[in-house]
Amino acid sequence: VELFGDRLAAAVGRKGSLVVGLDPVLERMPLELTGTPAERVTRFCCEIVDAVAPHAVAVKPQSAFFEALGWEGVRAFEEVCAHARAGGLIVIADAKRGDIGSTAEAYAQAFFPLADALTVNPYLGGDSLAPFLERCRTGSGLFCLVKTSNPGSGDVQDRVWEHVADLVREWGEEFVGASGLSSVGAVVGATFPREVGAARTRMPHTPLLLPGIGAQGGEAADVAVAFAGGPGSALVSASRSIIYAEGDDWRSAAAAAAAELAGATRAAAGIA
Amino acid sequence: VELFGDRLAAAVGRKGSLVVGLDPVLERMPLELTGTPAERVTRFCCEIVDAVAPHAVAVKPQSAFFEALGWEGVRAFEEVCAHARAGGLIVIADAKRGDIGSTAEAYAQAFFPLADALTVNPYLGGDSLAPFLERCRTGSGLFCLVKTSNPGSGDVQDRVWEHVADLVREWGEEFVGASGLSSVGAVVGATFPREVGAARTRMPHTPLLLPGIGAQGGEAADVAVAFAGGPGSALVSASRSIIYAEGDDWRSAAAAAAAELAGATRAAAGIA
Repeated sequence: VELFGDRLAAAVGRKGSLVVGLDPVLERMPLELTGTPAERVTRFCCEIVDAVAPHAVAVKPQSAFFEALGWEGVRAFEEVCAHARAGGLIVIADAKRGDIGSTAEAYAQAFFPLADALTVNPYLGGDSLAPFLERCRTGSGLFCLVKTSNPGSGDVQDRVWEHVADLVREWGEEFVGASGLSSVGAVVGATFPREVGAARTRMPHTPLLLPGIGAQGGEAADVAVAFAGGPGSALVSASRSIIYAEGDDWRSAAAAAAAELAGATRAAAGIA
Repeated sequence: VELFGDRLAAAVGRKGSLVVGLDPVLERMPLELTGTPAERVTRFCCEIVDAVAPHAVAVKPQSAFFEALGWEGVRAFEEVCAHARAGGLIVIADAKRGDIGSTAEAYAQAFFPLADALTVNPYLGGDSLAPFLERCRTGSGLFCLVKTSNPGSGDVQDRVWEHVADLVREWGEEFVGASGLSSVGAVVGATFPREVGAARTRMPHTPLLLPGIGAQGGEAADVAVAFAGGPGSALVSASRSIIYAEGDDWRSAAAAAAAELAGATRAAAGIA
């Protein structure tokens, strides 16, 4: 079985490093979409997936926005993941799960039939991630929170994130494939460029998922250092600035915003 | 509106400090239950709720085990929460969510119509908990992970949990009600009695939710120190040792195991 890191490296080689976050909020979705809230979310996300597919290597559906609609929203999440995978995109489920023992195993069961990779929270320690790491043997990937993009991320993380980065490197060592990339990635906010550089140094084989571009104020050029491990070593993620881009037609506006950020990302990665 | 801490204190005064965790695993459920996996889980959990209701102040459904069954499992989660609340039990959704900004708000929307309180992960910092804290104004409660019960909890937490405990105390200060208890609680593993004592001292008004009793090896007597803030200041939580208790009839076996642990908890709280 192909390791996730190798599959990611190959996909980035073909399509670049852009990840489009799917954060469906009813109030911001096009008025032309009708039906139940979950039906509108499904249709919106699937059409956004189709529009950005030429420009993005992966989509990152944010579980919370689907869960907010109850079980029908979770069904929509399943449908959107299936649609994106059928379209050849890597699916990174952004759920930030973290729990212990048999509970972590249950979360792995919940997400790994649906997604190629999952975001996880490291606060509970190494044994809490064991069931997810086990899935890396069969081709799945992880992105472990290290330094998040929000202003308050310093409250707890600034005392411990470098240590967490060292743990992430260790957890990922046995899953470094032929591409030189591990299947165990890290989330580092693009809003903290200095920390992005330090994270790159501490975790040389770790794919860095960099949210915070666009609506949160980060720019692709700020995180050029993240690509020091090669073009596949960093993923630039934007959500609202793409999926709610303004224009005459929402699909083509999203496609144009994705194309623009993909170009900026190629430039940052030094492959313009 | 009554603050969660006050509601909790009153309920504990009537019913004691036992919380029964609902961790439904198909392989361990009674063979007599038939139907789809989600139907079996719903029926199992609702009957367990009825069986333990005389002995427990709250139930703590673990979201992961429901999510593992896909959207039908999430529908079961909603049904089980509604059944427990209709039966007069406090519902603590054990989902350990943690995310930023509008995403955290979406999680609050997902869980607060269903549950009275939610477990949350503090790794992302104070601003990530703001939408949940806002809900405390209208009667909801939180239990923030501080020191978890698993063997690997030291990996990250032992460098930062005392600082997190101080933050939890600060976040909860404005929600300390007439009972002297805050609506913002903390999760501290009963498997670490020394840390339970230290947590009690650092967070004098914080309800402590103590998992790890029973199958994980903790005992109620180990955590007597947690009750130093009064009988309502600690909740003893057990899951598998109650819901899968052995006996001729699984309902009465669960009721008996709940009654026994409730008694041990009263003794530990000094109200035997």
